[in-house]
Amino acid sequence: MISSVITGTGSYIPAIKKENDKFLVNRFLNADGTEINNSNEIIIDKFKSITGIVERRYAEEKYNTSDLGYFAAEKAIEDAGIDKEELDYIILAHNFGDVKSAAIQSDILPSLATRVKYRLGIKNPNCIAYDILFGCPGWVEGVIQAQAFIKSEIANKVLVIGAETLSRVVDKHDRDSMIFSDGAGACIVEKENGQASGIISHATQTFTAEEAYYLFFGNSYDKNEHPDVRYIKMHGRKIYEFALIHVPKAMKAALDKSGVPIEEVKKVFIHQANEKMDEAIIKRFFRLYKMKAPEGIIPMSIHKLGNSSVATVPTLLDLVLKGNIKDQEVNNGDVIILASVGAGMNINAVVYRY
Amino acid sequence: MISSVITGTGSYIPAIKKENDKFLVNRFLNADGTEINNSNEIIIDKFKSITGIVERRYAEEKYNTSDLGYFAAEKAIEDAGIDKEELDYIILAHNFGDVKSAAIQSDILPSLATRVKYRLGIKNPNCIAYDILFGCPGWVEGVIQAQAFIKSEIANKVLVIGAETLSRVVDKHDRDSMIFSDGAGACIVEKENGQASGIISHATQTFTAEEAYYLFFGNSYDKNEHPDVRYIKMHGRKIYEFALIHVPKAMKAALDKSGVPIEEVKKVFIHQANEKMDEAIIKRFFRLYKMKAPEGIIPMSIHKLGNSSVATVPTLLDLVLKGNIKDQEVNNGDVIILASVGAGMNINAVVYRY
Repeated sequence: MISSVITGTGSYIPAIKKENDKFLVNRFLNADGTEINNSNEIIIDKFKSITGIVERRYAEEKYNTSDLGYFAAEKAIEDAGIDKEELDYIILAHNFGDVKSAAIQSDILPSLATRVKYRLGIKNPNCIAYDILFGCPGWVEGVIQAQAFIKSEIANKVLVIGAETLSRVVDKHDRDSMIFSDGAGACIVEKENGQASGIISHATQTFTAEEAYYLFFGNSYDKNEHPDVRYIKMHGRKIYEFALIHVPKAMKAALDKSGVPIEEVKKVFIHQANEKMDEAIIKRFFRLYKMKAPEGIIPMSIHKLGNSSVATVPTLLDLVLKGNIKDQEVNNGDVIILASVGAGMNINAVVYRY
Repeated sequence: MISSVITGTGSYIPAIKKENDKFLVNRFLNADGTEINNSNEIIIDKFKSITGIVERRYAEEKYNTSDLGYFAAEKAIEDAGIDKEELDYIILAHNFGDVKSAAIQSDILPSLATRVKYRLGIKNPNCIAYDILFGCPGWVEGVIQAQAFIKSEIANKVLVIGAETLSRVVDKHDRDSMIFSDGAGACIVEKENGQASGIISHATQTFTAEEAYYLFFGNSYDKNEHPDVRYIKMHGRKIYEFALIHVPKAMKAALDKSGVPIEEVKKVFIHQANEKMDEAIIKRFFRLYKMKAPEGIIPMSIHKLGNSSVATVPTLLDLVLKGNIKDQEVNNGDVIILASVGAGMNINAVVYRY
């Protein structure tokens, strides 16, 4: 039997630390441009209590998204111990391309995957490099695509990268700007035969009926800004409600397909969007099995790293596998779930045995 | 045996016709910003004799790339006679996202595939919508990915769209701006059992050693423009030489893998990049089999439609299948090749039996 096995991981945590109190100077506004009837202290306290975010990381000015992706990719290749020339695919998930610091244009020509391949110095032309745009779940979806290529026998070794610099597309007048951060994570997915480990099942969904524009590219809350300059924007409350209903169901669909009993699930690596939301999702997920969520089942990195979109899940996985998150580990034979939700609105979940 | 069969096609040809003489008013410059020592009449004549382009189409101001993609998708769905709610995937290839007329920001949040799904009114959340960035070969690569999903049994029906509005990212001081155009094409790929028709083989390559930035996002040739405003740029001569060496070989690799003798190839639908280049590629391809390229083997649309990137191959296929290109047709049992080359630098070829 063919398995798709994660044989190496890597992540890159940008150097610039931005603590919550750095936002005390911001002039936050409501969506309609009016002033918020609260001090920044109160706004930030409330923000912290919901999202769990204390600080976040931003990329240094000299780096772009593809640079971050390259740093993570290099580590994943080294971790897997493979010859990079043997890679059949490089799949890179992002949302805004390379956005130069202080510029507003996205640069996606050539693809960021091409840029990473170039920087890795891979000569083999049969290593196919492409980008996917799938919102925050892009990296998890890349892993699912890697599995499809392995199963259909067009690939043996795939590098999957998630990289993002959301700090370059935030509206400083929007409280949500405090959520977003920069980062990159990567893994190598390899074809193996007769292994018990690997991807067992997955589920993916795209909701567009009401949800297509829950995350969107929109104007600053400062109505004096030029309407052709746009930023990442979201309908946070709607996303929260949407995620609570649909993410647990998608995770259950994947788990039920796998045939693995819920008791065997040791960890859930969930997109670091918002601490309260993540906890509520996990609670509801276990409630679908009439269980209480076990203590410590979701490793968290959001407190220190914020929400770096496509980068959160692979970064979190890498941190835990390398023993860099306190009291969190994954052992041989453990079943884990990778799950994400974001722009699209897209949801996905992968059930994986280590 | 499982086959991946194209059961319907559609295309959208934008309404605005821009003839070559409309460029007589442009102030063309060399890459270094110096004046060109030729009149615009001579520049345009030379341009026409190389590329074959007489006129090209631009999207109306009110439409964005995703609108064009939606128009083509709707026709492909109708042509295939399927229920759109049965689609498992929507794959949309583009290069610059939705670029509003007269604005410089790319809007890729949410993905364009999500936008098309939304406009199609598809309710089924199990229809997964994502974008790929793979240069001009993006649509052909989408077809290859559709096949991978069908073979790995995660999809039965896939909508693959290529849509682009290059008119919004051209530097009017660059002669190459005359090459680029807007458009969209789409197809439905379906899983069928025991059919002789369908995809027989494919080849894909990404060249990044020297080639990664042959197509890139760069500054205007007018050195007075702001350096943070960038446009589609290319090293035309290098691309020409690259394509002549590598595209025929990739096509041969795909054909040899298929086991189909060259004599059975009835048509080659090649990316409409440049008439002289396309003719030279086909000549070299047949020379690899010690043959002369048969008359009329490559249907051409570049004269009237220009180079609309990802949209050229599906549009050309749709035009021929619907009998809209003089003296060109595809009949049941015919073997055709779909082939493309572009930013990445990416090359692909699909051998297909109708």
